[in-house]
Amino acid sequence: MQKKTVLVVHAHPEPTAFTRTLVDVSVQTLRGQGHTVLESDLYGMGWKAVFDERDFPARANPQRLSFIEESGHAYAGGTQTADVAAEQRKLLAADALILQFPLWWYGMPAIMKGWIDRVWAYGFAYGYKDAGNQYRYGDGIFKGKRAMLAVAVGGPARDYAPRGINGPLDQLLFPVTHGSLYFPGFDVLPTFATYGAVRLGAEDVARENAAWRARVEGLFEDVPIPFRAQNGGDYPDGHVLASHVAVGQTGLLAHIADSR
Amino acid sequence: MQKKTVLVVHAHPEPTAFTRTLVDVSVQTLRGQGHTVLESDLYGMGWKAVFDERDFPARANPQRLSFIEESGHAYAGGTQTADVAAEQRKLLAADALILQFPLWWYGMPAIMKGWIDRVWAYGFAYGYKDAGNQYRYGDGIFKGKRAMLAVAVGGPARDYAPRGINGPLDQLLFPVTHGSLYFPGFDVLPTFATYGAVRLGAEDVARENAAWRARVEGLFEDVPIPFRAQNGGDYPDGHVLASHVAVGQTGLLAHIADSR
Repeated sequence: MQKKTVLVVHAHPEPTAFTRTLVDVSVQTLRGQGHTVLESDLYGMGWKAVFDERDFPARANPQRLSFIEESGHAYAGGTQTADVAAEQRKLLAADALILQFPLWWYGMPAIMKGWIDRVWAYGFAYGYKDAGNQYRYGDGIFKGKRAMLAVAVGGPARDYAPRGINGPLDQLLFPVTHGSLYFPGFDVLPTFATYGAVRLGAEDVARENAAWRARVEGLFEDVPIPFRAQNGGDYPDGHVLASHVAVGQTGLLAHIADSR
Repeated sequence: MQKKTVLVVHAHPEPTAFTRTLVDVSVQTLRGQGHTVLESDLYGMGWKAVFDERDFPARANPQRLSFIEESGHAYAGGTQTADVAAEQRKLLAADALILQFPLWWYGMPAIMKGWIDRVWAYGFAYGYKDAGNQYRYGDGIFKGKRAMLAVAVGGPARDYAPRGINGPLDQLLFPVTHGSLYFPGFDVLPTFATYGAVRLGAEDVARENAAWRARVEGLFEDVPIPFRAQNGGDYPDGHVLASHVAVGQTGLLAHIADSR
């Protein structure tokens, strides 16, 4: 098997939390396969979550803060902060990205959202090659790399069932899987979720560890979510699905090829 | 017209940004109606986005950090940090909540996600009355209050059309409107969105200001999104839709009463 590099980014400050138990499984499994593991322990690093003027020490426009303008200026000119540049280097060195977090209010904890907000720079994760939206959803700087989420969910699985009251987890996380990962080019694997994660017994933990280990082992072989590529023909104008595609469908699932 | 109190929470550090222009419209419109406005300028306040051990100065368990346990302990015992307690007081004093933010990676900026993560305490926004999930989705501490989002979106409206490549905005924001606001009891109005917000001309701004003013004026009269109440009969077990409800539907929209 070819040796790869995998970046594991995680967001829980308690070393014995279940999220962290699964991080240990990730690292051990990947190293056991001979892969190189890079790690971003966002709490441990004291990651700055808030995207603000301190991200732009050399402003294009000191009078008025435009995030897009300053992000592009800082990325192109090599004046990003060291923490952001370091994460971008890890991402470029990695063949795959794993994000591990507890689901808080149906999304990422703020510290991880702030990792996306700050590291996903203009010219890097969007506005790639300064070509507007030409490279997105299947194209982009991460094309050829893989990504996967492992999420610890407090509530029970039935709340996230197809007709469960919270809504299905895959749809709640679409802004992450499709909007944040597929957008800049990652092939995204189905999300791994552990439900009832606040009340797991030893047997539950053993079962989840084994299930996650199998998913980590399949990181480079498993079939990604078949999100439709912007430049693959399904969006002739780059914006809206062609009339012959996903006929009669609207909404998030229309952007997944086999969702009927 | 009865005088009310409205809390406006916003997240953009640039006073001349479009998000802030609409905040000014909110404040002026509400004050013009005689309402009292409370404001949380998250960037201006230097809001701490990251939910961590510093949120719990008097730990229930100093050995192991469980956010749910410590959140409940701090809320019940009055040992929350002053910033969190102040936001909760504003929320309790308010008849309505308006959240205004730029859409970053299809969600809230980290600083606002961190406002939710930290302020939505156990015993307050979830685990209300320490009764598990008994009070949620239509019941809860904010029952009788209203909430509304105003979102500045960089991309064009067609990308968010029913078959647009990003997915419909209302579905992308479902984790906020349904999962974070309706969950603890708010009646949530349809989201106000301004597309192409990075390139607005003076006429566009005037049009959007007027449209938003009309929405603010309708804050206490307009019809909320008809999310289905957990305790209204549609979820007999409190978890999954009854078979006779939203027949044949799955996914996020099944939880909105008129979504067919």
